[in-house]
Amino acid sequence: MTTNQFLSDDTICAISTPHGVGGIAVARVSGPEAIEIADRIWKGKTLRDAESHTAHLGTIINQAGEMVDQAVATVFRNPRSFTGENVVEISVHGSRFIQRELLRLLVEAGARMAEPGEFTRRAFLSGKMDLAEAEAVADMIASDSRAAHRIAVSQLRGDYSKKISLLREKLIDLASLLELELDFSEEDVEFASRKRLREIASEIYTEITRLHNSFAAGRAIKEGIPVAIVGATNAGKSSLLNALLGDERAIVSDIHGTTRDTIEETISLGDYMFRFIDTAGLRHTTDKIERIGIERSLAAAARARIVILVIDPSAPVDETMIHEIMRSTRERDELPAHLIAVINKTDLNATKAGESAERIKSLTASEALLISAREGMGIETLAEALVAAAERENGSADEGLLVTNERHARAFADARESILRVIEALDSNLSGDLIALDLRQTIHHLSSITGDIPTSTLLSTIFSRFCIGK
Amino acid sequence: MTTNQFLSDDTICAISTPHGVGGIAVARVSGPEAIEIADRIWKGKTLRDAESHTAHLGTIINQAGEMVDQAVATVFRNPRSFTGENVVEISVHGSRFIQRELLRLLVEAGARMAEPGEFTRRAFLSGKMDLAEAEAVADMIASDSRAAHRIAVSQLRGDYSKKISLLREKLIDLASLLELELDFSEEDVEFASRKRLREIASEIYTEITRLHNSFAAGRAIKEGIPVAIVGATNAGKSSLLNALLGDERAIVSDIHGTTRDTIEETISLGDYMFRFIDTAGLRHTTDKIERIGIERSLAAAARARIVILVIDPSAPVDETMIHEIMRSTRERDELPAHLIAVINKTDLNATKAGESAERIKSLTASEALLISAREGMGIETLAEALVAAAERENGSADEGLLVTNERHARAFADARESILRVIEALDSNLSGDLIALDLRQTIHHLSSITGDIPTSTLLSTIFSRFCIGK
Repeated sequence: MTTNQFLSDDTICAISTPHGVGGIAVARVSGPEAIEIADRIWKGKTLRDAESHTAHLGTIINQAGEMVDQAVATVFRNPRSFTGENVVEISVHGSRFIQRELLRLLVEAGARMAEPGEFTRRAFLSGKMDLAEAEAVADMIASDSRAAHRIAVSQLRGDYSKKISLLREKLIDLASLLELELDFSEEDVEFASRKRLREIASEIYTEITRLHNSFAAGRAIKEGIPVAIVGATNAGKSSLLNALLGDERAIVSDIHGTTRDTIEETISLGDYMFRFIDTAGLRHTTDKIERIGIERSLAAAARARIVILVIDPSAPVDETMIHEIMRSTRERDELPAHLIAVINKTDLNATKAGESAERIKSLTASEALLISAREGMGIETLAEALVAAAERENGSADEGLLVTNERHARAFADARESILRVIEALDSNLSGDLIALDLRQTIHHLSSITGDIPTSTLLSTIFSRFCIGK
Repeated sequence: MTTNQFLSDDTICAISTPHGVGGIAVARVSGPEAIEIADRIWKGKTLRDAESHTAHLGTIINQAGEMVDQAVATVFRNPRSFTGENVVEISVHGSRFIQRELLRLLVEAGARMAEPGEFTRRAFLSGKMDLAEAEAVADMIASDSRAAHRIAVSQLRGDYSKKISLLREKLIDLASLLELELDFSEEDVEFASRKRLREIASEIYTEITRLHNSFAAGRAIKEGIPVAIVGATNAGKSSLLNALLGDERAIVSDIHGTTRDTIEETISLGDYMFRFIDTAGLRHTTDKIERIGIERSLAAAARARIVILVIDPSAPVDETMIHEIMRSTRERDELPAHLIAVINKTDLNATKAGESAERIKSLTASEALLISAREGMGIETLAEALVAAAERENGSADEGLLVTNERHARAFADARESILRVIEALDSNLSGDLIALDLRQTIHHLSSITGDIPTSTLLSTIFSRFCIGK
């Protein structure tokens, strides 16, 4: 890592545990003076003499020497800490007063209040993690479902960075070959055939495109998979959502502490979180004109990754509407949304329900689930179908890697454009130096994801090739 | 401590940090199997081999062996832990998912979800703290002002328990003397004059009464000192409250993180929290009949520790009302409330304001502050007067000890009744065995505060006296 010149010369502090009152709260102090600053508000074993990774019982004292709290201070010495700096974690009773007072004392003792994400930023600056890994920390903390968590873990573990590193190596190889061709072209030595170059570039293009396209699924898993419940008014869309929500309440309440901050139309099923699009509008619709309901459904479907099409078997099947919905799920850059067709109100007329199911199957080429939202029949099967659709969504990932970060998605989009220009240039038989520029650009975009802009790396690789060649 | 037979044989776990999402969250595992259970979900240094008070970086893994999170586990070995049991504190990233998952894994590995307060309960059971100290932990966590915090710290440090212990010793001395008298009375040996016994009992009575009476102040400091703003309608009570609230917002916002959960009529000034009684009613009063406003003011004053009497100098001074308010501040068992008289609207007519101030001084025997709530004039002086009143309230404590806990207050009330019966019995020259019963009762009530019911202690002390005597 070459970023150590960015190592901070001041010491920061913050309460790292969630905001509020609890049994304990933990303040983190990080920086060159962390241990000395902690010692200034500490009565107990002198922390300066403490070994790394040891915990000490003592008391926090204020300027008047009065005890503020009993506390446990744990010392982590540079570089064996989260930030790579000296770190003291001070665990106190989690009252508001103590948390405020502890920060106040730390600041008076010479620390500075940390900015949001500053500890992770320091971990990046001191070379403990790359940019993608640092971003994964934030994703990890925000993750609310097992699937979102798993992506963040994979990213934090560096899987993602490794993938980018592999792509970069390929690109650097490509660049070296090209620059060799460029250098030695006057000697009429052909170091690499253009055909081979195009093959490699094309492979890279495919991989970058796959990663870029995975952003739809990645974002869906991270923020909740957008689901639209569509269908004619009175098909039972709102009672279906309620039935699903009711089902979930039963599922999530088995482990203590799963309360939600906001009552939102989101559902955790299996490893996934589902987010219902525009359901407020759908639920409270009082439109008299059928068409408005359909337009609204189409708009929701266009933004969803999963579309639940609800059919009322007592009403005639509206073929036009179904075709339009089917089209809206496909009408975009990304992968088409998953369609789940359900025949509702099957408790009222089983014969008609069966007929509708056949009709839907012929129209959509997919099985229709027979349910009764009002009676709660078939809701579990529907939940399973949602999870299965989410699994397929997840499975669309390249080697399990999903792009979940908008910044990364933009970088991949830029990289894809650059590598596309490389391919076009090769096809047009343009000169190597022009192509090399776009190649460098591709490497630059990919490198920006991990924050490891590799001008020197690139140069040294090429230089080493020259040495071999000469 | 004789309570070790209550040591738990199961292992409990909980998230000890505040509920919600944060940089880190800490799970506590406590019990005989704490370290073994943690090892089951842990990849890294085997915690069973770790020394007490050491922190280890590793990963939490689920049953499938997948990484759930990077974590730091800190081992505290029996008895050098908060609970006195083996304890592992596991610090993870503070996402909802990770917190849930960590608890789930700990439970599957053999721990049980802790009940509220169970860690502190175990600390009590293992003899790490007495009951009053354990209760102080809860008070400490709930404390929102410096003064409330200070009381909890003092109680946690054992000051309170020491005081009770001293009182108990006195009572045990008294009991021993009495029982000796009882035993040897047939031999006509007078071990202690009844007069001396009465003196000691009377001292104890005074001390217990003082502690009992401190509950009004103690509760006020813990929960916010109840303040009533009283006065005739249109005297400017509501604008006065707003001026104080505005003042406070400026004061508390200098340290980051002082947001409130609920917007309540409470104010932090200096080291104290003030809670405004029934101000909603006072503020939104639309009563046409003056009398209703006064009744309401009187009711508020009767529940307050500080009464702010607001006078409008443009209206005639209502002597009857002022007398009634003065009486309502004194009409109770506890110490009288503090009265702060203010002349409002002094910006409108300085002469009349001065006259009103003179009038109020003669009626209440206290200085009146000249303010203008609307203009914000004199509000700082009023704030200082509030803090000064709070200081006096706090200062009414016996050696700085304030009873803040309702359970303790009840125990002191019971103890006071018992010791009063002792005094009456001594005065009536009742026989020693009857008096001894009430004495034992007094000791019992005091002992219930620290949870150290001392049948054996009492017996052994008396037994030792017998040895000396015989």
